[in-house]
Amino acid sequence: MNRSFMHDFMNPASVAVVGAGNNPMKMGTMHALSILKDGFSGRFYPVHPREKTVLGHKAYASALDLPEAPDLALFVLPAAHLISVFEDFGRIGTRYAIVVTAGFKEIGPDGERLEQQLVGIARKYGMRFIGPNCMGIINRDIKLNTTVSRIVGKSGGLALISQSGTYVAQTAAFLEKRGIRLGKAVSVGNEADVNITDVLEYLGEDDNTRAIAIYIETIRDVRRFLDVASKITPRKPVIAQYIGGSEAGARAGKSHTGAMAGKNHLYDGLFAQAGIMRVFSVEDLYGIGWALATQPRIRGNRIAIITNSGGPGSAMADTLDAMGCKVPEFSTDLKEKIKPMLEPHAPCGNPVDFTFALDMPAMTETVPELVAKSGEVDGICLHGAMAAGFLRMVFPHFKDLLGGASLDEMLAASEKDLSGLGRIPAKYGIPMTVSSFFGQEDNYTKAYQENDIPVFDSPEKAARAMAALYHYARISKRKTGAPKLPAGKEAASEIISRAMKRGDAALDEHESKQVLSAYGIAVPDEILARSAEETEAAAQKIGFPVAVKACHPQILHKTEKNLVHLNVGSGREAAEAFDEIQANAGFDTPVLVSRMMPGKREFLVGTSHDPQFGHCVAFGLGGIFTEAMADITYRLAPVSHFTAKEMAQSIRAYRLLEAYRNMPACDMDLLAELIVSVSAIPVLHEEIREIDINPVIISEGRPVAVDALITLAN
Amino acid sequence: MNRSFMHDFMNPASVAVVGAGNNPMKMGTMHALSILKDGFSGRFYPVHPREKTVLGHKAYASALDLPEAPDLALFVLPAAHLISVFEDFGRIGTRYAIVVTAGFKEIGPDGERLEQQLVGIARKYGMRFIGPNCMGIINRDIKLNTTVSRIVGKSGGLALISQSGTYVAQTAAFLEKRGIRLGKAVSVGNEADVNITDVLEYLGEDDNTRAIAIYIETIRDVRRFLDVASKITPRKPVIAQYIGGSEAGARAGKSHTGAMAGKNHLYDGLFAQAGIMRVFSVEDLYGIGWALATQPRIRGNRIAIITNSGGPGSAMADTLDAMGCKVPEFSTDLKEKIKPMLEPHAPCGNPVDFTFALDMPAMTETVPELVAKSGEVDGICLHGAMAAGFLRMVFPHFKDLLGGASLDEMLAASEKDLSGLGRIPAKYGIPMTVSSFFGQEDNYTKAYQENDIPVFDSPEKAARAMAALYHYARISKRKTGAPKLPAGKEAASEIISRAMKRGDAALDEHESKQVLSAYGIAVPDEILARSAEETEAAAQKIGFPVAVKACHPQILHKTEKNLVHLNVGSGREAAEAFDEIQANAGFDTPVLVSRMMPGKREFLVGTSHDPQFGHCVAFGLGGIFTEAMADITYRLAPVSHFTAKEMAQSIRAYRLLEAYRNMPACDMDLLAELIVSVSAIPVLHEEIREIDINPVIISEGRPVAVDALITLAN
Repeated sequence: MNRSFMHDFMNPASVAVVGAGNNPMKMGTMHALSILKDGFSGRFYPVHPREKTVLGHKAYASALDLPEAPDLALFVLPAAHLISVFEDFGRIGTRYAIVVTAGFKEIGPDGERLEQQLVGIARKYGMRFIGPNCMGIINRDIKLNTTVSRIVGKSGGLALISQSGTYVAQTAAFLEKRGIRLGKAVSVGNEADVNITDVLEYLGEDDNTRAIAIYIETIRDVRRFLDVASKITPRKPVIAQYIGGSEAGARAGKSHTGAMAGKNHLYDGLFAQAGIMRVFSVEDLYGIGWALATQPRIRGNRIAIITNSGGPGSAMADTLDAMGCKVPEFSTDLKEKIKPMLEPHAPCGNPVDFTFALDMPAMTETVPELVAKSGEVDGICLHGAMAAGFLRMVFPHFKDLLGGASLDEMLAASEKDLSGLGRIPAKYGIPMTVSSFFGQEDNYTKAYQENDIPVFDSPEKAARAMAALYHYARISKRKTGAPKLPAGKEAASEIISRAMKRGDAALDEHESKQVLSAYGIAVPDEILARSAEETEAAAQKIGFPVAVKACHPQILHKTEKNLVHLNVGSGREAAEAFDEIQANAGFDTPVLVSRMMPGKREFLVGTSHDPQFGHCVAFGLGGIFTEAMADITYRLAPVSHFTAKEMAQSIRAYRLLEAYRNMPACDMDLLAELIVSVSAIPVLHEEIREIDINPVIISEGRPVAVDALITLAN
Repeated sequence: MNRSFMHDFMNPASVAVVGAGNNPMKMGTMHALSILKDGFSGRFYPVHPREKTVLGHKAYASALDLPEAPDLALFVLPAAHLISVFEDFGRIGTRYAIVVTAGFKEIGPDGERLEQQLVGIARKYGMRFIGPNCMGIINRDIKLNTTVSRIVGKSGGLALISQSGTYVAQTAAFLEKRGIRLGKAVSVGNEADVNITDVLEYLGEDDNTRAIAIYIETIRDVRRFLDVASKITPRKPVIAQYIGGSEAGARAGKSHTGAMAGKNHLYDGLFAQAGIMRVFSVEDLYGIGWALATQPRIRGNRIAIITNSGGPGSAMADTLDAMGCKVPEFSTDLKEKIKPMLEPHAPCGNPVDFTFALDMPAMTETVPELVAKSGEVDGICLHGAMAAGFLRMVFPHFKDLLGGASLDEMLAASEKDLSGLGRIPAKYGIPMTVSSFFGQEDNYTKAYQENDIPVFDSPEKAARAMAALYHYARISKRKTGAPKLPAGKEAASEIISRAMKRGDAALDEHESKQVLSAYGIAVPDEILARSAEETEAAAQKIGFPVAVKACHPQILHKTEKNLVHLNVGSGREAAEAFDEIQANAGFDTPVLVSRMMPGKREFLVGTSHDPQFGHCVAFGLGGIFTEAMADITYRLAPVSHFTAKEMAQSIRAYRLLEAYRNMPACDMDLLAELIVSVSAIPVLHEEIREIDINPVIISEGRPVAVDALITLAN
């Protein structure tokens, strides 16, 4: 496998900065200071038109004066001055660049033109660049930080890709308090060249990255993103926050990185298809990301709760339960072992409740160890380990009673070696998440953080992170398979080209179903009839009851216009239906005489086309519930059998597909095959714009396409 | 109005503590220290069998030795020793007590007996008490704190009622960091006497309490709770976290306060009925509670976003949009006023994006003022005000450039008077929520907190809190009205007593519908038939198509047993249906011949009975979707017309009730009346256990009870 170019991009041995000076209030200087002060040991070259030295380093008037072509160049100078300097670096052979400068695509057509100039220069010299309008990169492995914030300390297994510079650069204090360390982070800005997918591909390969978090306002190469992400998620968790689904969010997003906002339901589908876990807040992006990056893969969904208080224990239990985990009651054996460590009547059966007893060794060592060893659970959530934080809080109450001891003396006296606090996960392969109402002012919070056990500020979050570990464990076991396109069917091509030649915007229902049928999709027996007599004969042939429906490529909403007769019980009624349809349509139209399919469960299967996502396949609740319930899921077309099944299983109304009331279970393989086939059709026939099959009726357990409309890009 | 006894309970002039000594590691001492050290200026009496003085105060060997009957007595001694001491206080005339001690109902029958003894003594002497198994009370108005944590500082408008002592006592550090101050808090423990509702009633009356938060594991007097809460919520917001819906949550909850866990969907309904806002984490209980307690009532849902970065601005916009708020684009006029304050191409149309510009006066004063004055929005969300926090973070980068100035000197030099930061809400009646990635290490975070502007640690939370203000504004406008019970109908009573006398567990379908009909509920034309001939005649009389259904009080699942024939089109078919039903039933049964009601939209209306909640009325999606979609909402019966309408509007499938596809809108008044009537029936007829009307079909816009089953408590 070729190593991604991003590996070299993220690991330069030398960095030049253009736009840094000796004025600490200038942005360029702030970026340069991060490179200089946060531990990067590579060579540093300031480029400045006038200064002799910048921040104590010899400055160069131009790229052309540099003693070498630096591996990476960082640009923080006004857009108007940028182009020629940028080209200088191309000329000397610098291969990687970061353009921090804003004022490009995000400001409109003028900026867009400037951005294209950058792209042109980069192409010409074979440079790759991040930005413009970004904060650059963090690679803690080599202590390189190009952002304006100070980011120091050892590396971490979480990597971040962000279309907002803020989430890379302005959250350093937020993350430090939570013990979260981004090993690598890339603020991609406008993505004129390097985009999210490029960085994702690299982080997928990077051994030091154990989980990847992405902040997304738009994805510019959806197909490649899906392909790259799908290869990573079985091995490495990827979580994403997508913003831009709302009108105002789109307006905000558009202005700030020049992104075109996509659509919420399509992103939902893309993430599901790629095995990406979606979150809805930046706090979860970091916090759940950190749990994924630090904890061992969970083996199952049985979770132990250890708490110093009932409320947080109950909250953890409820949250775990709501998110698909179990809090199993412990065996009698295990309970007997735990019981002696608790107050006489305290619950020991899971949750284990230490009540307000402050026996920290029992709570944080003995009991977790017993529980981990028992084999009865797959993960541990712990709330309420505390010492110094509580002491600090109540010290003013006690100081008179302590013979003049100071808080520091008290803290020193009660200090303990907590270096072993984090050993359960590594020793037993059992993940652990912790919550505490104390921050780093408490030695337990601090020790857990230092040992890479995620500590959350409330119990529900620790529980949700644990549930996310379980969610990822299921993702890691997916065998999605590649979509297999069937051979294109001549019969379908002929029908479509006939309609194209007629100039119609759609196939009529009969034609639409013939196309579906050519791809093996079950449709009811049906006959096209052009007179009352033909209608009666067709009905007799099919057998009663039948449906009689107008069938004409220019009639798209049959029901609303009273052009559909269902449950027609006799030949005479069928003939009458033909006549009525002619009258209601206002012009002569053939009718389709179809067998009525028994079955009450109605779904929809279809494809839509989006300029950004291309063809997408949809599955959901159909019939009259389509709009009211909006229970529809999407994937990029074509889909594999596995993905089609996942679609069917992911709707809220999934239970309708199981054996339900008097109805047999739907044959899920048949349904998946139907979705697979539908998803392939617009890919095989590029004249097709959209497909709408509604209802697909589950008839005796088998899905049948009862009504269908195929529209054309005509 | 009589003032709640809880007012006096919360405002004692003298407090006795039993169980405090001079050993600071004893729980009793810790409780006493909080009373002594946190500012309470009332009289303090330690009661101790041996010590002469406790914590510097003269100690008394027994209650009987005290110089006065203290207003309040706090007990922190082992359960076994408690009873006689407790009685002593009753004897001397102390009216209020807090029993911190655990080991009562929560440990089983022995504890339950002990708890009943306490209750007996309290009743005998007219004492009211909180607990046992609790942390007691906080009343910051008089600086009284009986918990084990140190809780100091000025009072606040948020009050908490909690069934978990932890949320009153162990979150002091958590709350302080967030600038949240509980003005009053009560840890109710086992609620042997004083319960949530008692405290709620008091807090509803208390002028210093502007919002009430409740942590709930069970409610012991659901009806009174509904009554009390319903009276408060139009004037004062109440939010609640309910835990215990899950099996493990119930196990946890039960063990720690002796609570019987209730049911999630019933609590959902209770909260909706009472106008209580439900949250799902303790962080929201506090954080959203604090926004409700501090901000003026919002007038509408138009929100301005002011940010220093696009990502957080977009996240706020998306979150607001998803929760029912708008982020309207500003007028050209307003944009022109804001534009000069921003970087040349920065968005100014809402969100207003200051990008990374650090012009704090513009961001935190000028622009918010312009926006508030404009009349174009009803609330402001602001992200990214910062100074000291950022300076602290980057100071190590700069210190060499600053001629040896220390961080403190730098901070002092950049210090500003931020006392005016919080003025927008009070001045313009426009609420404001803020988010920052910096905590109190930043002077802006601190100043906002001090001025009672809620500061959240991520943008989504600030947006959610704003949306909650809007949610509450709608609640405050509800005119729920009281349920009006109709007069009991003799016809219904007769049908029911006949079935009771037969010893049946249910009415048959015909009887059930006659009962409904007696209360004005529309049912289809129908005739009971006992032979094939009668069936044919009935069908002819009603007109085709008809339904023919077995009608027998012992046949509860007709469809599953093939005892229902729908769309019967002729007299002959009707007679055949009668015969087939006899064969399938295996015994002779009458049949009900009913007119087929046209209409595809099927709902359910019914009542259920729960030992804790009593009769509850249900409305939801019916027909085959009932279980699959589980889109059902509950309220305590009987309900008012207003509440019935709210039920109908609160299901996910609400759109089905509007004009939809070719179908007319459902007459919502008729539907509400139907729900009102159903909710009254089990209240009027106590022999009724449950009512199940499924489907209620919306036929030409009017709801008709097409199938019904009334079960009896027989």
